[in-house]
Amino acid sequence: MSKGLFITLEGPEGSGKSSAIKIVVEKLKALGYEIVMTREPGGTPISEQIRNVILDNNNTEEDPRTEALLYAASRRQHLVEKIWPAINEGKIVICDRYLDSSLAYQGHARGLGIDNILKVNEYATEGTFPDLTLLFDIEPEIGFERINKNKDREVNRLDKEALSFHHKVREGYLLLSKRFSDRYEVIDASKDLDTVVNNVYNVILKRLGK
Amino acid sequence: MSKGLFITLEGPEGSGKSSAIKIVVEKLKALGYEIVMTREPGGTPISEQIRNVILDNNNTEEDPRTEALLYAASRRQHLVEKIWPAINEGKIVICDRYLDSSLAYQGHARGLGIDNILKVNEYATEGTFPDLTLLFDIEPEIGFERINKNKDREVNRLDKEALSFHHKVREGYLLLSKRFSDRYEVIDASKDLDTVVNNVYNVILKRLGK
Repeated sequence: MSKGLFITLEGPEGSGKSSAIKIVVEKLKALGYEIVMTREPGGTPISEQIRNVILDNNNTEEDPRTEALLYAASRRQHLVEKIWPAINEGKIVICDRYLDSSLAYQGHARGLGIDNILKVNEYATEGTFPDLTLLFDIEPEIGFERINKNKDREVNRLDKEALSFHHKVREGYLLLSKRFSDRYEVIDASKDLDTVVNNVYNVILKRLGK
Repeated sequence: MSKGLFITLEGPEGSGKSSAIKIVVEKLKALGYEIVMTREPGGTPISEQIRNVILDNNNTEEDPRTEALLYAASRRQHLVEKIWPAINEGKIVICDRYLDSSLAYQGHARGLGIDNILKVNEYATEGTFPDLTLLFDIEPEIGFERINKNKDREVNRLDKEALSFHHKVREGYLLLSKRFSDRYEVIDASKDLDTVVNNVYNVILKRLGK
């Protein structure tokens, strides 16, 4: 049995990655591929417990490095219990967000440093990088427009702060796409759904050697 | 106001470190020193929550690296919320177990590698090593005897397994005492309580420049 493929999806909310991948997965299944779709914390009880600590609204004192270590711990457990076993069974694992989210959001946009976050995650994952990372790249303004569509309100001060943060996140992702160009494929997520689906599908087929 | 002193206590259960330090703390207080006694997870809510994940008996699938990351996260939060503020107020912080416990138990005895655990903890602590680490060194057999005293039973198979594990832990601690000889003081914990108290007291006074 051949080893499977590990694909991760990255990019902001509003990039349409969930809608696009849903269609692509159906197309791949129709070709006979076994796909495991997952997202962190992946439904493993320990990862969920860790995630609850991270997201507990009472934990206002939570330090950014504590958070980075907790994300890495949760990621580790997801990998051990779910991702590695599926890859070893020859399946295609598609994970919505993985270590590049920590690198772009915490490492770059929050200023903890990409290399610091990378070191912690290399330990957590024993260097398990994805075979393929699909970056759904989009101007934050367009992503926001999509999210806010049908929400009857104007952009407020909070949104504007968030907007500059999301520009930093995008900058981080684009840096990563150059640094890890072997595994990154940048998908123009501003295009219409059909075009995005086609591009994603073709990129995955190429990696599968088809 | 001058910066305080950060002292950690290391060594196995049965080494008598808690009994000895209790008396030493009273003697130091009598000299006018402000002492903060603490132990991981240190009573900070986030650290306690993390510790609960580590110790949850249902988490049988918990991977050793997940555990190492969780200990580091809990340590980080204890440092940020409790240890750093006290040191910055000029107090003497005495912490029962700190990163050397992870290095000796997980890094050396459990085989995860001292350098791996060190890297994760350097990130977690931003390189905050203790000014002084008191290693309460004792032959595991003697420590076990002390713990089992008044427990009317013979050493069983489980104890024997534990014994070889505790020999590895001791070996780890002694390696660390050589590697970090600037901050380590090895206390012969097989001696009677009065002698141990005197030795600990004198070592601390020396570090305080008295």
